[in-house]
Amino acid sequence: MKKLFAEFFGTFWLVFGGCGSAIFAAAFPEVGIGLLGVSLAFGLTVLTMAYAVGHVSGAHFNPAVSFGLWAGGKFEAKELVGYIIAQVIGAIAAAGVLYLIVSGKGDFTGIGGFAANGYGELSPGGYSMMSVLITEFVLTMFFLLIILGSTYPKAPKGFAGIAIGLALTLIHLISIPISNTSVNPARSTSQALFAGGDFTAQLWLFWLAPIAGAIVAGFIHKAFFDKT
Amino acid sequence: MKKLFAEFFGTFWLVFGGCGSAIFAAAFPEVGIGLLGVSLAFGLTVLTMAYAVGHVSGAHFNPAVSFGLWAGGKFEAKELVGYIIAQVIGAIAAAGVLYLIVSGKGDFTGIGGFAANGYGELSPGGYSMMSVLITEFVLTMFFLLIILGSTYPKAPKGFAGIAIGLALTLIHLISIPISNTSVNPARSTSQALFAGGDFTAQLWLFWLAPIAGAIVAGFIHKAFFDKT
Amino acid sequence: MKKLFAEFFGTFWLVFGGCGSAIFAAAFPEVGIGLLGVSLAFGLTVLTMAYAVGHVSGAHFNPAVSFGLWAGGKFEAKELVGYIIAQVIGAIAAAGVLYLIVSGKGDFTGIGGFAANGYGELSPGGYSMMSVLITEFVLTMFFLLIILGSTYPKAPKGFAGIAIGLALTLIHLISIPISNTSVNPARSTSQALFAGGDFTAQLWLFWLAPIAGAIVAGFIHKAFFDKT
Amino acid sequence: MKKLFAEFFGTFWLVFGGCGSAIFAAAFPEVGIGLLGVSLAFGLTVLTMAYAVGHVSGAHFNPAVSFGLWAGGKFEAKELVGYIIAQVIGAIAAAGVLYLIVSGKGDFTGIGGFAANGYGELSPGGYSMMSVLITEFVLTMFFLLIILGSTYPKAPKGFAGIAIGLALTLIHLISIPISNTSVNPARSTSQALFAGGDFTAQLWLFWLAPIAGAIVAGFIHKAFFDKT
Repeated sequence: MKKLFAEFFGTFWLVFGGCGSAIFAAAFPEVGIGLLGVSLAFGLTVLTMAYAVGHVSGAHFNPAVSFGLWAGGKFEAKELVGYIIAQVIGAIAAAGVLYLIVSGKGDFTGIGGFAANGYGELSPGGYSMMSVLITEFVLTMFFLLIILGSTYPKAPKGFAGIAIGLALTLIHLISIPISNTSVNPARSTSQALFAGGDFTAQLWLFWLAPIAGAIVAGFIHKAFFDKT
Repeated sequence: MKKLFAEFFGTFWLVFGGCGSAIFAAAFPEVGIGLLGVSLAFGLTVLTMAYAVGHVSGAHFNPAVSFGLWAGGKFEAKELVGYIIAQVIGAIAAAGVLYLIVSGKGDFTGIGGFAANGYGELSPGGYSMMSVLITEFVLTMFFLLIILGSTYPKAPKGFAGIAIGLALTLIHLISIPISNTSVNPARSTSQALFAGGDFTAQLWLFWLAPIAGAIVAGFIHKAFFDKT
Repeated sequence: MKKLFAEFFGTFWLVFGGCGSAIFAAAFPEVGIGLLGVSLAFGLTVLTMAYAVGHVSGAHFNPAVSFGLWAGGKFEAKELVGYIIAQVIGAIAAAGVLYLIVSGKGDFTGIGGFAANGYGELSPGGYSMMSVLITEFVLTMFFLLIILGSTYPKAPKGFAGIAIGLALTLIHLISIPISNTSVNPARSTSQALFAGGDFTAQLWLFWLAPIAGAIVAGFIHKAFFDKT
Repeated sequence: MKKLFAEFFGTFWLVFGGCGSAIFAAAFPEVGIGLLGVSLAFGLTVLTMAYAVGHVSGAHFNPAVSFGLWAGGKFEAKELVGYIIAQVIGAIAAAGVLYLIVSGKGDFTGIGGFAANGYGELSPGGYSMMSVLITEFVLTMFFLLIILGSTYPKAPKGFAGIAIGLALTLIHLISIPISNTSVNPARSTSQALFAGGDFTAQLWLFWLAPIAGAIVAGFIHKAFFDKT
């Protein structure tokens, strides 16, 4: 139960901090934080909560991570459903609070696309479905290789939270223009629910590609880098 | 006494570095550091002084942090008043030195809002009192969850200063447009004193919301993540 | 074999993340990550994979690094060829995937210079061949001094991945305007192959200067800072 | 002797990386790194070389740091002169190489103020001599408090390089608009020599204020935070 609370709070923080920085601060006039600031924010949500509750739940905050760790043999199948439910609820709760805050802006007229992910017409830079599919697959695959590698017993102790958090920053530095960056189905779901319309119709890709990439990484780690 | 000096210097540095970067460098023509630079500066004040004096005083530098640690059972009630006084004096001293420096600028005509916090008309992005209240509450709550979690005996040793400092960076990345980001009543007080007018009238919120969020985090940590 | 896979994946990530961030996100309208974001991305590719596979292969991801470690007496000559082949293949594979993704952009008309390195007419800021030669030599020399120093037994354990990754960030902060920053012949080769034309004709410099700088650093380390 | 080489290389890197990023990349059209990028670069020069040669020389790279550590009782007076000479030579050598590189730019017409420090007319933001004096004094004082505190036996082991490097980043985030940020007489000297004119005439302040601030910090540390 303790674990599920940790996953709830962690995923809440990921969405509140990552998507929140995008919604409130990315395009603030003159001094906005831009995509670089949003990338940093996403990474720091994971870095901070990894040190805060990593010893409780392992700090997944992401259904793709849970699947990848399972494929890599580091997480039990029977825990998958509970973790994913806690993650999705945490993400949606955060999106709800973001909605509350943004609707209190003096000149509020609607949330637009919120911080939802998309391809084709809904890709920030107009990238095709195939480009987005490849990008999300490759990035989540490397995200899991980094998670599995940096938490491996032979890796330096204690540094995994830094490596994993900053990996998420790096992933956003590459791909916000392509897909608005998901690599996390819970994060995508929370935003699509509020953005609605075509964003919801495209949600399947942001479950499929990250989870597929994560599972492949689990197998690669097992085959090449894991002794057992 | 050593502890109070550490809190004085630490909170001085937080205000001098965080608010100073906002006042001097955020909107510097062409190459200004923007809200991203200010966010980084605030976080680095805490990261740096956490390693410098964390072993002396615990590195609170913030009345809300002291209250939250008390609520979480990690700080004694009898030390609260001394810590908070040292923090507020440190913050005000830093604001005084910032005033001295900025008034030596060739084209100085007044400090405007300094780096004060505000809601409604005084919110950088025009957010309502309710939006600001929710934001400050939620952010301080997570700030304390991260502090309590990353200093927990089971968390990796030595990394708390990084996690906590970068948590403050993240908090600013999200919320400068909303409230100019407080999560710290001492920091808010120091700026409101110099900015005066309505900023002083709104100061209550920046004591109430952060301390309330911090205390709730203390109880959450105790209930879910602390064994004792 | 395990080592060569690690070098393949690591160099793939370096090119995919570093060059990818430059191609997709550096000049995105209004909120692009700029040269600062690209610098951070390059550094984080190395930081993240250093913690993920550093314990497998030593995390070179760069022929110049392999040469420098050999010159410093920390890497065996017989392993050089295998490592360099794995690195170059990884880099080219990443460039191929980048090409696939960018060609799916709605308004795609060609890759231009991709993220290739160059001097004279092909230097981003119009720097001469001699300026580029000096810059690449000096920067790779210091890169290797940092690698050899921070992995030295007397240096603090576990921190080398941070120091080395952020050294690459620093190197890019200095020199993207000069040469588009190489310090890595595999990275340069992968981009020149796709950019073609004069970029390929200038490729010799981005093998010569980094490897020369790295070898000199190996000898300096051996002479001044290494006991054995 | 080994120590002096370490100080030479370290201070070379500080000036080459910090001032170099300012000269080459800060104001690059459209995608320049700005003052934020320069701040990061300065900090990373120290972070990287602290891990590379900190175990050799203590990683001062700055006459004010050497004076401050002496005042704090952590560095012997008889080593001061050697260290400072190595630092100043390293800084000037780096400035020479920077000059070589920048003069190879196609449209080179002169170095202007290089990355020199100044007050009054020569302050980037037009700050008075008194503002600059206070700023350099306070910032160097805190720089030394952080150095002395984070290397204190009770502080977490190994993290000092991160705290100290990022302290220098923070210092630049605050004060580039005020004085172009010195806190380091060797760095100031190297740039003033090349910039010439009034910059040389103002050099006294950038020896006086940083060293005074550093010495005061040494005494504060001894009086309040040091047991012996």
